[in-house]
Amino acid sequence: MAEYSVVGKSIPRIDALEKVTGKAQYASDFTLPGMLYGKVVRSPYAHARILNIDTSKAEKLPGVKAVVTNKDIPPIRTGMYLGDMYALPVDDVVRYMGEAVALVAADTPDIAEEAVDLVEVDYEELPAVYDVEEAFSTNPPVIIHPNLAEYEVIAPIIVRRLVPGRPNVPQHFLIRHGDVEKGFKEADVIVENRYSTTPISHCTPETHVSVAWIEGDGTLVVRTATQGIHMIKGALCDVFQLPPTKVEVQSPYTGCGFGSRTWFTTEPLAAILTMKAGGRPVQVKFTREEMFIAGVHRTPVTTYVKDGVKRDGTIVARELTILVEQGAYSNISFMIVKNGCFGAVGTYRIPNFKLDSYGVYTNNPLTGAFRGFGSSELIWALENQIDIIAEKIGMDPVELRMKNFLREGEKDVCGQTTHSIGAEECLKKVAEWIEWDKKPVEEPEVWKRGKGIASGNKYTLAGSEAVCEVKVYPDGFFEIRHGTDEMGQGHNTILAQIAAEEFGVSVEHIKVVQGDTSVCPYDWGSLSSRSCFHAGNALINACKDAKRQMFELASARLGRPADQLETTDGKIRIKGVGGKEMPISELFSGWGKLYASLKGEIIGIGTHHTPIILEDPETGKSDRMVTYYIQGAYAVEVAVNVETGEVKVIKSGACFDMGQPINPKLCEQQMDGGAAMGIGSSLCEEIVLDKGRVVNPSFADYKIPTAAEMPTNENFTSMIAGVPHSEGPYGAKGLGEAVVTPYAPAVSNAVYNAVGVRIKDLPISREKVLKALKEKK
Amino acid sequence: MAEYSVVGKSIPRIDALEKVTGKAQYASDFTLPGMLYGKVVRSPYAHARILNIDTSKAEKLPGVKAVVTNKDIPPIRTGMYLGDMYALPVDDVVRYMGEAVALVAADTPDIAEEAVDLVEVDYEELPAVYDVEEAFSTNPPVIIHPNLAEYEVIAPIIVRRLVPGRPNVPQHFLIRHGDVEKGFKEADVIVENRYSTTPISHCTPETHVSVAWIEGDGTLVVRTATQGIHMIKGALCDVFQLPPTKVEVQSPYTGCGFGSRTWFTTEPLAAILTMKAGGRPVQVKFTREEMFIAGVHRTPVTTYVKDGVKRDGTIVARELTILVEQGAYSNISFMIVKNGCFGAVGTYRIPNFKLDSYGVYTNNPLTGAFRGFGSSELIWALENQIDIIAEKIGMDPVELRMKNFLREGEKDVCGQTTHSIGAEECLKKVAEWIEWDKKPVEEPEVWKRGKGIASGNKYTLAGSEAVCEVKVYPDGFFEIRHGTDEMGQGHNTILAQIAAEEFGVSVEHIKVVQGDTSVCPYDWGSLSSRSCFHAGNALINACKDAKRQMFELASARLGRPADQLETTDGKIRIKGVGGKEMPISELFSGWGKLYASLKGEIIGIGTHHTPIILEDPETGKSDRMVTYYIQGAYAVEVAVNVETGEVKVIKSGACFDMGQPINPKLCEQQMDGGAAMGIGSSLCEEIVLDKGRVVNPSFADYKIPTAAEMPTNENFTSMIAGVPHSEGPYGAKGLGEAVVTPYAPAVSNAVYNAVGVRIKDLPISREKVLKALKEKK
Repeated sequence: MAEYSVVGKSIPRIDALEKVTGKAQYASDFTLPGMLYGKVVRSPYAHARILNIDTSKAEKLPGVKAVVTNKDIPPIRTGMYLGDMYALPVDDVVRYMGEAVALVAADTPDIAEEAVDLVEVDYEELPAVYDVEEAFSTNPPVIIHPNLAEYEVIAPIIVRRLVPGRPNVPQHFLIRHGDVEKGFKEADVIVENRYSTTPISHCTPETHVSVAWIEGDGTLVVRTATQGIHMIKGALCDVFQLPPTKVEVQSPYTGCGFGSRTWFTTEPLAAILTMKAGGRPVQVKFTREEMFIAGVHRTPVTTYVKDGVKRDGTIVARELTILVEQGAYSNISFMIVKNGCFGAVGTYRIPNFKLDSYGVYTNNPLTGAFRGFGSSELIWALENQIDIIAEKIGMDPVELRMKNFLREGEKDVCGQTTHSIGAEECLKKVAEWIEWDKKPVEEPEVWKRGKGIASGNKYTLAGSEAVCEVKVYPDGFFEIRHGTDEMGQGHNTILAQIAAEEFGVSVEHIKVVQGDTSVCPYDWGSLSSRSCFHAGNALINACKDAKRQMFELASARLGRPADQLETTDGKIRIKGVGGKEMPISELFSGWGKLYASLKGEIIGIGTHHTPIILEDPETGKSDRMVTYYIQGAYAVEVAVNVETGEVKVIKSGACFDMGQPINPKLCEQQMDGGAAMGIGSSLCEEIVLDKGRVVNPSFADYKIPTAAEMPTNENFTSMIAGVPHSEGPYGAKGLGEAVVTPYAPAVSNAVYNAVGVRIKDLPISREKVLKALKEKK
Repeated sequence: MAEYSVVGKSIPRIDALEKVTGKAQYASDFTLPGMLYGKVVRSPYAHARILNIDTSKAEKLPGVKAVVTNKDIPPIRTGMYLGDMYALPVDDVVRYMGEAVALVAADTPDIAEEAVDLVEVDYEELPAVYDVEEAFSTNPPVIIHPNLAEYEVIAPIIVRRLVPGRPNVPQHFLIRHGDVEKGFKEADVIVENRYSTTPISHCTPETHVSVAWIEGDGTLVVRTATQGIHMIKGALCDVFQLPPTKVEVQSPYTGCGFGSRTWFTTEPLAAILTMKAGGRPVQVKFTREEMFIAGVHRTPVTTYVKDGVKRDGTIVARELTILVEQGAYSNISFMIVKNGCFGAVGTYRIPNFKLDSYGVYTNNPLTGAFRGFGSSELIWALENQIDIIAEKIGMDPVELRMKNFLREGEKDVCGQTTHSIGAEECLKKVAEWIEWDKKPVEEPEVWKRGKGIASGNKYTLAGSEAVCEVKVYPDGFFEIRHGTDEMGQGHNTILAQIAAEEFGVSVEHIKVVQGDTSVCPYDWGSLSSRSCFHAGNALINACKDAKRQMFELASARLGRPADQLETTDGKIRIKGVGGKEMPISELFSGWGKLYASLKGEIIGIGTHHTPIILEDPETGKSDRMVTYYIQGAYAVEVAVNVETGEVKVIKSGACFDMGQPINPKLCEQQMDGGAAMGIGSSLCEEIVLDKGRVVNPSFADYKIPTAAEMPTNENFTSMIAGVPHSEGPYGAKGLGEAVVTPYAPAVSNAVYNAVGVRIKDLPISREKVLKALKEKK
C-alpha cells in the first residue's frame, strides 16, 4: 500500500486522554437546572386492547409535572421504514409486553416511578402469537396488524412487496439468479438444513437517554445518545411537524451503539414530555431492564438453506427461505428483510440462486439493527453449511471456500461487481495463524479440542450522503465538522488523520467538531460501516475545496495559478523544490490573526454520495445496492467439556480487509472487540422469552463474556488484509460490522471438529451441546 | 426612502417572547456541575509596591481549590491597545485602588470571600497623583509608568506619539488644518473656555461575569458577557499562547454593555483560575461594588477650547487641548485619545483647526470605552461653547449651528468627505417639536423653565471586518450566523429582517445564530455603532452568495442561467411574470429533506471590510478613519429650582439620522434609552473619588435616573431623519452611541436659558447650580 505521512499510521486516538480521565461528556452525564425525569408506563400484556387509562391519581401526586396518554397528543409515528409504530398506541392496541402506553415527568426519578404506578390502565387481553413459524403460516392464530397493507413506506429506498395469504408478513424480498432447479439437477450432493438465531441485546454500556427542552426561541433541542444526529433531527421535524430551523439534536460521545441507536430511542418520548411540561428539560433514561424489554434486540432469523454442490466442491445451486422476525412492529427490521440477505450474496460465486426473505410479525419485543444488520444471522447458517458440505464431499473446508470465493471483477448473484476483496487473503492468514494443517493439542480428561474456521462479510449500503466542512484558521490550524457519530470507533481520529494528510500538518493542528446538528453538516449517520468511507471521502473533498480557496487567495501573492500551489506546515508554496512560500496566516487580515480572511471565511465543503439503484422487483437484481463488501475470516480453537457441554474459546484469530487502513491500530481494535462480541453471541448471549416476556432482563441473568472468557494474549490476534478500494478515501473502506459476522460459525465448526456435534440454533449453550452429545451417544 | 417588504418595518423583536418570559439565557444564568467561584484580592492602595504575598492560610482553608499570585503564572497582558496592563502585576507595583493582586477559587462564594481575606499582602505605599492636570505637567509628583516608552502598541491601527518631557502621557494625537493663528486674527470674537467631565459607570444590569473551563480535548472555553466574542477569543489565544482551535468564547444574550465589555473584563481571571484548578469550571462574577471600583469608567476629559468666530456666525478657527484621563493604565482609553476627537471633527465646517489630545495617567481607577467613546465628552464642551458664542454675537443658537454644519460632499478638518448627513434635518425637527421660537411656560414660585438644544454626532470607526454565513435549509428556511453581539440593541431582529428581505420570506423563516465563536464567523464586535452597517452588509453579501449557489443548482432544472433566477416564498423561479418555478427543497436529496443538498451544503459567506487609512502623523489627516458619522440633536426643556439647584428635564425630544432605518421602532427605542442615559450623565451620575478611592460604589450612593426622572410620554419623543447611506445595507448606518452625545449640553444650555448660569463641569448637580446661582447674585 502507498506511504503517507499521517494516514496509515497507528497514532493514538485524539480523544484518548479525555476518555481515560473521565472528562469526555456523554448524554448520560448531561443535566440542566430544573430538569424533570420522564418515565414510561408499559403494557404488562403482549397483546391487549386498552379500554381506559385513568391518570387522575398520578396527576395529583406532588412533583408530577406531566402525564401523557395517546389522548393528549397527535399520532407521533416512530417507525423508521414502515408507518406501523407510534410513540403511544394510536389504535388503543398494545402488541408487545413493555410497549409504552403513557408517559410521566416529575421533579425526581422516584416521584416519576410512583406516578407510573398510579396510572391505572384497563386492558382487554387479546390472543397472541410468539412463534415465528406459526405467525408466518397462511392461517396464523393471530393477525397482529390487520391494516398492514395500508401502512405507509416512509423511506423511498425500498421496494415494497406484500405476500397474499400471509397476513403477518409486512415485507418480502427475493432474489432470482440462474435456475436453481437446473442447478440442483447438476449437483452431486444436496445439503439441506434449518438454522436459527435468538434475540440478543447490544449491551451498550450507556443506556438509551435523551434530555429534551425548548429554547426561548421555540427550538426543540434534544441531547441524546444516537448513531445519527441528522437522522433523528429529520425524524423529529417530520413527526412533530417542525421546520428544520426549530429542531436541534446534540449527541456528544456515545457509550456505544452497535445498531441500537440507529433510529429513535428515547428522543420522541422526551420531546413529548417537554412539550407537555412547557419546555422544561426532561430526561428520559432507560434502566438496564428497559433496555432488555423495550430496546430493540438483534433480529432472530430462521434460515432454510438447500445447497447443490459438485464433487469437486463447486457450488452450483443455493435456495434460501428466510424468516426475519420483526417482533410486534417492523421498524428497522423492515429493512433487514432485504439487506440481511447481502450476507448470503457477497462471498461466494453461485450460478443458480433463489432467495425468499420474509419479515414476520410476532407479539415478541422489538427487533432491529444490530452490528451486522442480518449478515451475521445468514452467515451463521451458510458457514455452518459450508463445513457440512465439505465433510460430505470429503474436501478441506478452507479449500472449499477458496474454490468458491468471488474474485475481483466477478459479479455476485445480484449483478454487483466484486472489487477490493480480501476474502482469500483473510482466510489464508487466519488458517496459517491457527496452523490449520495441524491437529489441536489434546487436553487431558474431559476437555476436547477442535479448530474451526469461517468466512464472513458485511456490505455497506449504497444510497446515502455525507457532508464535511473544513474551516481554515490562521497559523495552519484547521477545524473539521462532520455529521457522523463517534461512539467509540475512532472516527474523530481517522478524520483528523485524513485532514492532517491533506493539509500537510500534524493531527494536533486539526480540531474535530461533531455531534451537534446546529454546527455539523448532514450525514446519514454512524451505521452500515459507512463513516470512514463516506465521511472520509466528503472530508477529502472539503479539504480540496478549502485548498482551492486558499490557493486562489494566495495566487496573486505567489505569482502562480492556484493549481500550481500546495500547502504543508501552515504555509502555501509553489509546487516544486525551493518555491516561494507564504504563511496561511497572511490570508487573514488584521491583528490577532482572528480577523476575517480575505474572503470572509475559508470554509471548504465536500460531499460524498453513493447512488443506489433499486432492485428489479422480479429478480432482486441491481448492480448498485451495496457500496462495497468488507470480507474477513476467523479461525478459532475451542475446548469442549464433554461432561458439562461447556465450550471455551482457546485461540481466536481474525483477519479482515478494510482497504487502506487509515489507522491500523484502530482497525485491530475493532476486530478485537468483534471477537469479544462474537464469543458472547456464539456461546452465552440470549434473551430468553416466555410468551413474550423477557425472562432475563439484567446482567445477572443475561451473560456477556468477561476478560475471563477471552483467549490469552498470545492466543489472540487481529490481522489486516486486502487492497485499497479505488473509490475509498486513500483507498479505505469500512470495517466495524464485518468483524462480528463469521464468529459464531467458526466456533460451531470448531465444536464439531472437537466433539462431532453441530448446534444449528444459536447460542451454542452448554445445555444444547450436552444434549447433542447425549443424543450422539 | 425606498419601500421594502420586511426592511423598514417595525416588526416586533424576534427575541421579545423569550426575554419577557425570562427564558433568555445570560452568562450570569450559567452554571456547570462542580463549578468553582473565583474572587479577587484587591489592592487597598492607589499606588504601592507589593513586598510579599503569603497565601498559605488561604490555601489551607477547606474548600479552596486555587490561589494564584503573579509568581504562579507567566505575565498575562490585558491591555487592549498598549502593553501596560497585566491580569496580575508583573512588576509588583499596583497603581490604583482595587487593582487585582491575587486570585482565589473555592467551592462556594463564601469560602472564596474568606480565602480573599486570608491572603496576606505586605505593601510599601508609594506617592500617588490623582489630579489629571498635575499628572500632565512636565514635572509631575509621580511618574506612574517609568517604562512607558517601552510598552508595545498591540494594535497596528494606531500611530503612536509620545510627548518628550511629559512622563505621564502615553499617547498624543493631533490635528493641524489651516492656520489657526491666522483664523483667530480674522475672527471678530474669541471665546475661550475649559470644560470637564467626571467618571461615570455604565451601570449595566448584568455585572461582569465569566465562567471558564477546559474541555476534555484541552480547549479553553469561556462563557461570558461581552461585546466582542471574537475579540476576546483572539486576545485569549494571544495572552495564553493557545492556537485558534483551542479557545472558544460563548456569549449568549448580554445584559447591556455600553462599552464596558469591549475588551477583557473577567475572562482572563476565570481562565487563569480554571487552568490552576485542573480545568474545572470557575465563575468570576463581579459584585456591583467591584463594577464601581474595578470596572472601567467613562473617561474623564478636560477640554480647553478657543474659538474664533465672525460676527455673521462663521466659525473661522478652533483650537483644542484635551486631557483624556487614562487612570492607572491606558487600556482602551489609549484609543480614545485619538477617536474621541472625532466628536470635534464631524459636525461643523472649520477652516482653521488645531487639536492636541493627550492621554494622561493618574492613580485613579481604570477608564475606558463608554457609549460615545469620547465624543460625548468633547461635544459636552463644544455644544456649550456654541451657545456661548451665539449669545456673544447675538445670534440664535439654532441658526448658528445651521450656518456652520458640514453639508453633503464637504470635507471635514481631517479631509474626510461628508455623506448621508441629517444634522440640519435633525436640528430642525427637534426645534420644531420643542417650539423653539416660543418661550417656555413659566411655573410659579421657585421653578424656572428654560429650553436648550444641542447637536451631536458619533463616528463609526473604519478598519474593521464583519463576516456572516447563511445556511440554506429545505422548505425555504434559512439560518444566519453572525459574529457581532446582541446586548439588547436588536441586531438579531434587524439581521433577520435583512435576510428575510433578501430571500423573500417572513422573519419566521429565519433562524439567527450568534454568541459562540465555535459557530459564528468573525466580527470585530458590537461596538463603535458598527453592527448594523458592517454585519448587515456582510449578511447581504452572504445572502447573495447563497442565492448564487442556489440558482446555479437550479439553473439546469429551470432551463435558465443563474442570473435570470430569483427566489421568494421558498421557491426559485425565472424572473418575470409567470415563470417556471421549483421549491428550494428540491435542491436537497433524499427523504426527510434533511439530506445533503446537491452540493453538500449551501452556505453563503459574505464579508464587509471598511478599510482604514492611518493618519499623517504631522497633521492627523486621513480621508478614511471614519466609516460614517451619525448626526442628531436633542431639544429639552428643563425646570430649575432656584432654591435647591435641582434640575428636572420636563420635555425631551430626540432626532437622529441612521440612514435607512431597518426597524424604525428599534431606532426610536435606542433614542429613548439614550435620553434616559443622557439625563443621568447630565444631572446626577458621577463616580466620586477621594484620593483614588471610589466613595460611592453602590446604587444607594450612585444615582441613576428612574422612571420618576423621565419626562411624561407626551413630553418625550424620538424622531428619525436623514437619507440612506450609499454604502449601507439597504442604506442603513449605525445609531446606538450617537444618541447620548448631545444630551448633556442640551440640558446645560436649557439650564442657562432658565436661570442664566452655566455649569462647565459635568454633572450639573444641585450643589453646582446652587453655588452658581449664589455667585451670580
